[in-house]
Amino acid sequence: MDMMNDEFYMSLALEMAERAQGQTGINPVVGCVIVKDGKLIGMGTHLERGAPHAEVHALQMAGAKAFGSTVYVTLEPCSHFGKTPPCSERLIAEGVKRVVIASKDPNPLVAGKGIEILQGAGIQVDTGILSERSRKLNAPFMKFITTGRPYVTLKTASTLDGKIASKTGDSKWISNEGARDRVHTLRHRHQAIIVGVSTVITDDPELTTRLSVEGLNPTRIVVDSKLRIPLRSKMLHDGAAPTLILTTGQGDPKKREALHEIGAEVISCGEGPRVDLKLAMDLLGQKEIGSILLEGGGTLNGSMLEERLVDKVVLFMAPKIVGGLGAPSNFMFSGVEQMSDAITLNDVEFEQLGDNMCITGTPVWSESVN
Amino acid sequence: MDMMNDEFYMSLALEMAERAQGQTGINPVVGCVIVKDGKLIGMGTHLERGAPHAEVHALQMAGAKAFGSTVYVTLEPCSHFGKTPPCSERLIAEGVKRVVIASKDPNPLVAGKGIEILQGAGIQVDTGILSERSRKLNAPFMKFITTGRPYVTLKTASTLDGKIASKTGDSKWISNEGARDRVHTLRHRHQAIIVGVSTVITDDPELTTRLSVEGLNPTRIVVDSKLRIPLRSKMLHDGAAPTLILTTGQGDPKKREALHEIGAEVISCGEGPRVDLKLAMDLLGQKEIGSILLEGGGTLNGSMLEERLVDKVVLFMAPKIVGGLGAPSNFMFSGVEQMSDAITLNDVEFEQLGDNMCITGTPVWSESVN
Repeated sequence: MDMMNDEFYMSLALEMAERAQGQTGINPVVGCVIVKDGKLIGMGTHLERGAPHAEVHALQMAGAKAFGSTVYVTLEPCSHFGKTPPCSERLIAEGVKRVVIASKDPNPLVAGKGIEILQGAGIQVDTGILSERSRKLNAPFMKFITTGRPYVTLKTASTLDGKIASKTGDSKWISNEGARDRVHTLRHRHQAIIVGVSTVITDDPELTTRLSVEGLNPTRIVVDSKLRIPLRSKMLHDGAAPTLILTTGQGDPKKREALHEIGAEVISCGEGPRVDLKLAMDLLGQKEIGSILLEGGGTLNGSMLEERLVDKVVLFMAPKIVGGLGAPSNFMFSGVEQMSDAITLNDVEFEQLGDNMCITGTPVWSESVN
Repeated sequence: MDMMNDEFYMSLALEMAERAQGQTGINPVVGCVIVKDGKLIGMGTHLERGAPHAEVHALQMAGAKAFGSTVYVTLEPCSHFGKTPPCSERLIAEGVKRVVIASKDPNPLVAGKGIEILQGAGIQVDTGILSERSRKLNAPFMKFITTGRPYVTLKTASTLDGKIASKTGDSKWISNEGARDRVHTLRHRHQAIIVGVSTVITDDPELTTRLSVEGLNPTRIVVDSKLRIPLRSKMLHDGAAPTLILTTGQGDPKKREALHEIGAEVISCGEGPRVDLKLAMDLLGQKEIGSILLEGGGTLNGSMLEERLVDKVVLFMAPKIVGGLGAPSNFMFSGVEQMSDAITLNDVEFEQLGDNMCITGTPVWSESVN
């Protein structure tokens, strides 16, 4: 049952922010709710990079009533001129009485400054309301702003024996429809999607977002150390989203030229023989790709894990056993010697989707959550 | 919130039966509750083979009040002289007015006869109250009584990549303490536990039931085609429960003699080179072993699955990724060609145990549930 308190309003601000995941690029998602005399008077969400912040939308709705109000905002109001003027100054100018904040700005260079400015103007500031939920929501933003690298969500679907295909390579279908719909929601929420070139050669996928409502298509990224991608691949021609090819010094310059000509961007990540994945993440970060959905085969998944480049694992598990000693597994890498050295997930959550289970967690090395 | 109706009383009878799982051998577990004039007047549970049936205990408690009462019993009252006189006759003699039954006797030779006898005596009989819960509870009894083979529960614990050990063989520990406690409850509830000889050679396990309360130790069964079991193995000397060795014509007769001398029973299951598992299940059934917990390595698990000898799968999954292309998997067998031919589990249930997930289900070939 609902109980009216600070969480009551902050949870609405968070709901509003959560629905906007995927449309703000490298910016955080932020929700804001303004309350006065026992009534909601304003609501706003940051909708896209360069557009007004959540507070500005909410203040706009509140109008003159904002004077003396309480403002609930999921992230510390900004204190600097970025693409828009600082929200903390605006809140002061509007004469608000109290500001309630879920979590501080994760950027260590600015964290706390927005709060200081508000307090300096005599505004009561309370922090820590539903802060964990807010921090999880903006884990990709926190990773990117603190490391310059994209937040990587590894998504895979496997059988109970950890297989992503039968020994003949057949994989249609492992997970149920409910699970596959979730994957499209994940695509919408990430700026880019990354796969290995084998997936492109085998499946010729579009890697677009297909849902009952319209979604955003992420940039397609293909790890292709020797530029083996077929020039006729759908993703090079459908215009649904940009396509980037990560290659090495071993990629044929003529193929590279041909790819450029049909509009694909090709990025060199080291001399090879394999793509330097750490370098790749740095370069993608420089291109302002702040979040990536990794839909690799077992080998790319395993390499990304070994390089500690995965921030979150989303595993859909179907109640099937397919066998096959050589059938491909969900995570293929040389492995650790002791079970106690296994890669362990924290913050594990389980969600049942019919007879499938969705298991999510953050590898312990991830700096991006908590 | 509780609502008083037939389910209200039947669920108590089922609770009583459930608590007795593991102590009735090849007999079913049965609970009985007797009600009259709005009050509970008798309760009983079948405690062990050869001892009184649930109805008899409950009628004993009710005494003369049983006349005109309603009797809730989880399984159709018996109509034949087995180790005890038929319960249907006893219910008639006590003058009960109504009998409510969760599920019919699964034995096709007797199903419905107990009901007919009761109805013939003018007693009102109602069936189907919480029948699915009752049928699931006695799935092992149903399998045994209809096929003569033990009901096999495959239990395994694996990482998210389906591994039961690292590439060096290290497996301590995969699952958490809560999951491991469940395994001991499973041991209590099965008449026997089966492992491959490699497990005995590697771990020298006792395979006993260790809980915060006393439990029953299952008979230990070792699949050992060439009689490689070390004579000093703990399970051959601890006296905690009988130990059976399943071997083939390739087992050394001298080793066989030595095993007999220290009290282990050795059973030949075919000429080899591998133990004929179907024959083994027939022979174990003839020895009145009606339920087996399979705690095999990946190979024994895989063989039992391939032979369709598994009735239920209980998989504990830990949020870990251990990698290692050659690291042993939970289910190792040659595998199917198409994903659509994968072994699929029905009646899937998920239970969260801290950061571990317990996934249970019945392979579609199983005749023993529903």
